[in-house]
Amino acid sequence: MTDRPEKIENALLSYLPADDESIRTVIESMKYSLTAGGKRVRPVLVLEFARLCGGTEEAAMPFACAIEMIHTYSLIHDDLPCMDDDDMRRGKPTNHKIFGEAAAVLGGDALLTLAFETVLSEKAVRLNGFEKCALAGRLLASCAGAEGMIGGQIIDLESEGKSVAIDRLRLMDRLKTGALIKAACLLGCISAGASDEQKKAAAEYAECIGLAFQIVDDMLDVTSDEATLGKPIGSDAENDKSTYVSLLGLEKCRSLVAELTDEAVSSLSAFGGDTSFLSDFAGKLRDRRS
Amino acid sequence: MTDRPEKIENALLSYLPADDESIRTVIESMKYSLTAGGKRVRPVLVLEFARLCGGTEEAAMPFACAIEMIHTYSLIHDDLPCMDDDDMRRGKPTNHKIFGEAAAVLGGDALLTLAFETVLSEKAVRLNGFEKCALAGRLLASCAGAEGMIGGQIIDLESEGKSVAIDRLRLMDRLKTGALIKAACLLGCISAGASDEQKKAAAEYAECIGLAFQIVDDMLDVTSDEATLGKPIGSDAENDKSTYVSLLGLEKCRSLVAELTDEAVSSLSAFGGDTSFLSDFAGKLRDRRS
Repeated sequence: MTDRPEKIENALLSYLPADDESIRTVIESMKYSLTAGGKRVRPVLVLEFARLCGGTEEAAMPFACAIEMIHTYSLIHDDLPCMDDDDMRRGKPTNHKIFGEAAAVLGGDALLTLAFETVLSEKAVRLNGFEKCALAGRLLASCAGAEGMIGGQIIDLESEGKSVAIDRLRLMDRLKTGALIKAACLLGCISAGASDEQKKAAAEYAECIGLAFQIVDDMLDVTSDEATLGKPIGSDAENDKSTYVSLLGLEKCRSLVAELTDEAVSSLSAFGGDTSFLSDFAGKLRDRRS
Repeated sequence: MTDRPEKIENALLSYLPADDESIRTVIESMKYSLTAGGKRVRPVLVLEFARLCGGTEEAAMPFACAIEMIHTYSLIHDDLPCMDDDDMRRGKPTNHKIFGEAAAVLGGDALLTLAFETVLSEKAVRLNGFEKCALAGRLLASCAGAEGMIGGQIIDLESEGKSVAIDRLRLMDRLKTGALIKAACLLGCISAGASDEQKKAAAEYAECIGLAFQIVDDMLDVTSDEATLGKPIGSDAENDKSTYVSLLGLEKCRSLVAELTDEAVSSLSAFGGDTSFLSDFAGKLRDRRS
């Protein structure tokens, strides 16, 4: 499992269009952000839930790549001047800083499109069959669309500079980050042909680590430093942004993250096999410094 | 068939997310451009090829809607200030002029995502089966992605203000406009379970009307007026843009469009049934004034 990040990166690159001078800019834009040091949280979840439910890494890999493509496109578009207007991401210039805004918009569009091409590719169908690929694509689309991730992004944008109640913050995060993490866990289940009970447990795990992940993000914006985090810190407070930290305080956040991590680990009891990777993973997300 | 545009519009609206106060901006952004008076060229082609190959309008409708969603998203993103920076489209303010740039980016993203959700929806699968829906989604993605429509858009952007050879112009249009028109004709074939021979003929028809369509577009920019066209005319010349008109002259364009339309009509002989709608359609595209 230790070579997973490398395997994921190689698989991601294999799905990119072959180099072609006339469309090189958009391919380079896609490649730059796909390989810009992402933590691969979502694809790892796809692969591990597939393994846990008796599936293969090979069959789950196209689904894992697709969700990372969607996550990556969302970061490119989020960073645009008309959105969050961020110059740095993971310690590197953001996509539009390198390729310009037009190629960043198009690179993001192309990654979103490629995600569906990948899920429905000949390879994916050969390994999973038409039904699982179609269900995977449907799940991806519903979690990434207006009632999922994009909905969370619009709530985020409209909350800017406003004080926001905890319920709205929770809804925003459930959509903006939670939906895709849930999709990741369920995509692994779909590839492996998991039972409904296993899918329910995977969704519970996803909801707990999804919320914990977001709370930790808010905490790091207060407790980390720019070099460790790879982006400026203190930006939430500077932008008068309501966060779990501003609404609940750092101590309450810390205990909430601990509780959610415990809940996530408990939900794994529904699975028969070795769940140590996923319990460790939840712990690592809790303890992460960047 | 005369009530098709209304049926298409109703079907498009039925696939939009239900109204929800917290994500209303993005839903309104999607709805505004979906209902902004498009000619519905692509969905009509889906429905007509499905009918001609023995399929039903009901089964082809989700595919027809999906391609119109992709076409619509591409217009929203094309009009953005960082792309073509257009204020008007079909006689109405462009999406970002009404909703702002962020909601225009997100509305476009959401329409692209919804296209795949629609092709893979429960309804689409009930009417077409998993295999046809997966193949339809795969075709849509490959025609809309970096090696299709998006590739054409990047070539267009990088050709701005440059004089461009006819081959490059042709490649650009084959990708930017042609790929989606071809996808439309083939989606109808997929829904109906058409033969390979029928698919080949549909692709030929699509290639001819796709190129004719683009040449007519270039001609209208010279010969039409703003009120008829719904957008400023003369913009190609103003931007020093190489077009079929600037490269070949108006007369040569006119005869080329006539030839291509004849070829499109000839390709229809591969179909057994009544092809008058599609021959008339090719003629109408040739003779259109806006």
